[in-house]
Amino acid sequence: MKAIVSIIMGSTSDLPVMEEAAKILNDFMIPFEINALSAHRTPDEVEKFAKSAYSKGIRVIIAGAGMAAHLPGVIAAQTHVPVIGVPIKVSLEGMDSILSILQMPPGIPVATVGVNAARNAGILAVQILAAGDETLNRKILGFKGTLKNKIIQANKELANIKYPYKTN
Amino acid sequence: MKAIVSIIMGSTSDLPVMEEAAKILNDFMIPFEINALSAHRTPDEVEKFAKSAYSKGIRVIIAGAGMAAHLPGVIAAQTHVPVIGVPIKVSLEGMDSILSILQMPPGIPVATVGVNAARNAGILAVQILAAGDETLNRKILGFKGTLKNKIIQANKELANIKYPYKTN
Amino acid sequence: MKAIVSIIMGSTSDLPVMEEAAKILNDFMIPFEINALSAHRTPDEVEKFAKSAYSKGIRVIIAGAGMAAHLPGVIAAQTHVPVIGVPIKVSLEGMDSILSILQMPPGIPVATVGVNAARNAGILAVQILAAGDETLNRKILGFKGTLKNKIIQANKELANIKYPYKTN
Amino acid sequence: MKAIVSIIMGSTSDLPVMEEAAKILNDFMIPFEINALSAHRTPDEVEKFAKSAYSKGIRVIIAGAGMAAHLPGVIAAQTHVPVIGVPIKVSLEGMDSILSILQMPPGIPVATVGVNAARNAGILAVQILAAGDETLNRKILGFKGTLKNKIIQANKELANIKYPYKTN
Amino acid sequence: MKAIVSIIMGSTSDLPVMEEAAKILNDFMIPFEINALSAHRTPDEVEKFAKSAYSKGIRVIIAGAGMAAHLPGVIAAQTHVPVIGVPIKVSLEGMDSILSILQMPPGIPVATVGVNAARNAGILAVQILAAGDETLNRKILGFKGTLKNKIIQANKELANIKYPYKTN
Amino acid sequence: MKAIVSIIMGSTSDLPVMEEAAKILNDFMIPFEINALSAHRTPDEVEKFAKSAYSKGIRVIIAGAGMAAHLPGVIAAQTHVPVIGVPIKVSLEGMDSILSILQMPPGIPVATVGVNAARNAGILAVQILAAGDETLNRKILGFKGTLKNKIIQANKELANIKYPYKTN
Amino acid sequence: MKAIVSIIMGSTSDLPVMEEAAKILNDFMIPFEINALSAHRTPDEVEKFAKSAYSKGIRVIIAGAGMAAHLPGVIAAQTHVPVIGVPIKVSLEGMDSILSILQMPPGIPVATVGVNAARNAGILAVQILAAGDETLNRKILGFKGTLKNKIIQANKELANIKYPYKTN
Amino acid sequence: MKAIVSIIMGSTSDLPVMEEAAKILNDFMIPFEINALSAHRTPDEVEKFAKSAYSKGIRVIIAGAGMAAHLPGVIAAQTHVPVIGVPIKVSLEGMDSILSILQMPPGIPVATVGVNAARNAGILAVQILAAGDETLNRKILGFKGTLKNKIIQANKELANIKYPYKTN
Repeated sequence: MKAIVSIIMGSTSDLPVMEEAAKILNDFMIPFEINALSAHRTPDEVEKFAKSAYSKGIRVIIAGAGMAAHLPGVIAAQTHVPVIGVPIKVSLEGMDSILSILQMPPGIPVATVGVNAARNAGILAVQILAAGDETLNRKILGFKGTLKNKIIQANKELANIKYPYKTN
Repeated sequence: MKAIVSIIMGSTSDLPVMEEAAKILNDFMIPFEINALSAHRTPDEVEKFAKSAYSKGIRVIIAGAGMAAHLPGVIAAQTHVPVIGVPIKVSLEGMDSILSILQMPPGIPVATVGVNAARNAGILAVQILAAGDETLNRKILGFKGTLKNKIIQANKELANIKYPYKTN
Repeated sequence: MKAIVSIIMGSTSDLPVMEEAAKILNDFMIPFEINALSAHRTPDEVEKFAKSAYSKGIRVIIAGAGMAAHLPGVIAAQTHVPVIGVPIKVSLEGMDSILSILQMPPGIPVATVGVNAARNAGILAVQILAAGDETLNRKILGFKGTLKNKIIQANKELANIKYPYKTN
Repeated sequence: MKAIVSIIMGSTSDLPVMEEAAKILNDFMIPFEINALSAHRTPDEVEKFAKSAYSKGIRVIIAGAGMAAHLPGVIAAQTHVPVIGVPIKVSLEGMDSILSILQMPPGIPVATVGVNAARNAGILAVQILAAGDETLNRKILGFKGTLKNKIIQANKELANIKYPYKTN
Repeated sequence: MKAIVSIIMGSTSDLPVMEEAAKILNDFMIPFEINALSAHRTPDEVEKFAKSAYSKGIRVIIAGAGMAAHLPGVIAAQTHVPVIGVPIKVSLEGMDSILSILQMPPGIPVATVGVNAARNAGILAVQILAAGDETLNRKILGFKGTLKNKIIQANKELANIKYPYKTN
Repeated sequence: MKAIVSIIMGSTSDLPVMEEAAKILNDFMIPFEINALSAHRTPDEVEKFAKSAYSKGIRVIIAGAGMAAHLPGVIAAQTHVPVIGVPIKVSLEGMDSILSILQMPPGIPVATVGVNAARNAGILAVQILAAGDETLNRKILGFKGTLKNKIIQANKELANIKYPYKTN
Repeated sequence: MKAIVSIIMGSTSDLPVMEEAAKILNDFMIPFEINALSAHRTPDEVEKFAKSAYSKGIRVIIAGAGMAAHLPGVIAAQTHVPVIGVPIKVSLEGMDSILSILQMPPGIPVATVGVNAARNAGILAVQILAAGDETLNRKILGFKGTLKNKIIQANKELANIKYPYKTN
Repeated sequence: MKAIVSIIMGSTSDLPVMEEAAKILNDFMIPFEINALSAHRTPDEVEKFAKSAYSKGIRVIIAGAGMAAHLPGVIAAQTHVPVIGVPIKVSLEGMDSILSILQMPPGIPVATVGVNAARNAGILAVQILAAGDETLNRKILGFKGTLKNKIIQANKELANIKYPYKTN
């Protein structure tokens, strides 16, 4: 089994956030790897990883980072595999990581998701991989159904709230 | 008894905030319904709800949502019943939901209230319904009196604070 | 002909923005008045206006203001007629007026629209008045159709853009 | 003993912040009063207070408020007694109250201090009153000395921190 | 020739920004279509588009919008084709559109790029499509080379700047 | 004639903003001086000025500065004469100067006015000086009347706007 | 042993943040001193310190401050020893101290590091001192190696996470 | 003549800002080089530059970048030569580049100066180099004198402004 998606984080302190991406990939039975790499502390390893990612079989990279979050952009600069960036909230409500990941210069896009939204990063990775993969397509459509079911469930809970002037 | 106001929220996690609107409507004896709908997870149900709201007798909609809060605007796009939007604070101090609800494009207004201000949304709904309803008019004027009474009460508490150079 | 909607602004420098509300009301043939009042410079006149608005026949108030924009909130404090607040951009990208109008304390809501969105304020006023007025209902539905037509027109323009790999 | 300074707050929930102003005035033996008034809930009382403040002997007003904080500006609009505004942090890190108090329109200034800085508001009131009052002048100069003493004390504490390469 | 990428914008006023995406796709010889759709003005057309996109052959959607920018999220809610969101600067320096597109709720990701960064959206679309397409892979690698050449060219220009103490 | 108010600015580039304060003081016939001083470039002169201000007869200081605006706070640290701070917009919409002036530490208040609001700083200085000066009191009350007259004038202009459904 | 680096803070409440700088200097065996000084409460001491710092042998100054953080800039104005500024988070997520330290006017730079980043301030001081000091050079290169080791350690921890579809 | 300072920018569009640093270095007769390098477009060249900078004789690096400004941090990660970061304003008032440069993770500081403050970056470089270089020390002290002279000149201009109640 060879990894198709690579999840990268700067340190294990990012794991509670980033593990949500791993769970989604696992649920969709997509082989993935998880590694710690730092744009600032291990630039050579980042370079090696980014340059070999495509030939190793990686088709989507998910990179999470906080503060002046350079990791997603620095990886994106050295590979043409699509990079999904997850801004992690460490300081300033996460606004520093949002802007450091999102506002990439012309030529080097990073597909940014919301603050701490590693789960959404995982789903986006599945959507990217689903093109031309009928099994994944069916699974992702099923997944959307479960989202809807949560709303149906929520409505049942709301039905239990009683007020004299509540009509439903 | 048919609902005149519809309270919509994206999930039951919004209930502690949104229930404040329900309490106000109940206090004013205005029939209302509460439902969970999601602009993103149940777009068809949102559409069905919005398009039939007026003919079902709904005259004001109160919609609360957090983060990239699309629900109030998406409902407003599909009905001419006035929509009151309640930005719910989930991340970024609620600034994301404020701007996602407030900054609607020309043609599709949402009547936005403050962050987590579901109680004010309920009062605004009453004010909208009070036009031409003498009973509601009298009630809302009485309600304003109670606001004033709280200040009078506050003054009594402040009178109990003692300093040598405090003169009242 | 007696005014049903009152448009209030702090000075004539706000007129280029606020006139958009007037145009909408005129298009919908809703009688309206326009006045200049200032929460800070003419507080007595604001009070007199707000307290007599309902009995004079006003059913919606549209108030625009910039900077520390107190006018909509101060009017809302003295009437139960719904007040639509229009934050006008003068400084700080308009963020000061947004927050000064939106973040009203419990009990005194202002129905806030986007920065400089006086046109949307006018449409919201029409939507509020349309409850129970079949003629207005039909008109506002027709108006929504024209919004759609602009998109259809936009699509025609886009069809004229030619690229070798553009397929439509 | 007649009050020279008036401390105003919107509700008793602001008391823990605003009491710092009272303590300073008391320490300087300046007669003061404390009242609860709301720009939105008791506009008539605010007007009455503001219009009679000067003739009653009030020479400085300290007004604290949170969110869309209109109280200081609304008072300043109805008196020429200088108004010191204290933005109270309730939501959005207090940025809404800062801007609602600070960004007053031409003609109606409010002397704004920092978020929750009621103690500084009290000191500013003393400084304003000290003009031409030799006793207050001496006291305020003595007070500045105590600020300096805190730093001297802090230095003693820092002297106790020991590191091999720390030289003092 | 059937479109693989669909570029969507809310109105033709967004065209000067969004055309950059079209140019990139054309340069890479990827068939694409351009349409105007509005989350608020043509919700039915948005739904029809989103639900049929995959079966029509669309594999990436690029959606640009300004202000309370709901279009990318509303499309993403109704298809599993990856949606790239382009925040367009209309007001508030574009911060409203950034947050309205980026901060999507769990389950419905939008791959957000920087403010007005339609060119980067086009490149990201190419990167997504390049997985398993050797021709595109070679092209995108060549494209990265041209980015590098611009820097080399920039260095030549900088070499022409003369100062006595400049050494290169 | 000895100056009672001192206007300080960091450089002559601030003059177009700060001259509004001078005009107000001149209109109220209050003797004033204008000087350029910099917290950073002439710290010794700032110290000399601040320490001698009271004994020279200065009763209010108006200090304007942009960016990391330290001038008002540094002066306030070295005198007990009240300091009015004017944040001047140079960068970041003026938010840097607002926060650098407003958020002073405990013990050293600066009476901050809005961005570029030197005119309001002048009026605040007059209000501070008016305590116990009957002539100034009468003048400042007259000045408030002129503010009101502008609104009356504005109303006349608004009366000239004609729409079929405008009622006034 | 004479101090080469001087760590300055406004009060002992800043010590938990600023001590991180002391630890780094101690680890690198660089003699340093720690003092409390306040731009506002002890301006004379700040002046004396700044003006004598170079002749006393100080080659780098690290100054931390919160809110309207003037200390680093005021020191920088009175010495040509490089000043590293540490914005300390007290209010507004630390944005007030960032801007008060960073946005210095032309001629008086402060080398600003991130919010509460006293440890980075210490490392920057070491880097500045390392120029021409072979021992420090070797030590700082060794220090970079330990940063890398943390990542290697993090990877080992990540290797222990087990999912069926995790490949490493 | 070998360069001691290296000025780096991402593209020649940054030259009008960054040239201010060159002018300062030239005025102080400090040999310097200017190059274009991009963290994203030429990561290998950035690495080569950073790793060889110290041994080539570079003692200070000045790096300017806009938007998601990774260049200063990426260089700082690969050398122990101090890096001065200049946030360049391209979008969002420059707040994206400020945060991307300032908020570096523990271990990798960047000495950040204000938005577009390349001149201050040059001066900071001189201050860093002046340690132990008596000639530079004398020059930088002379430079501070010229800053003071500008204020003296400004005062002469202000003396020319005439008002009846201006006393100087």
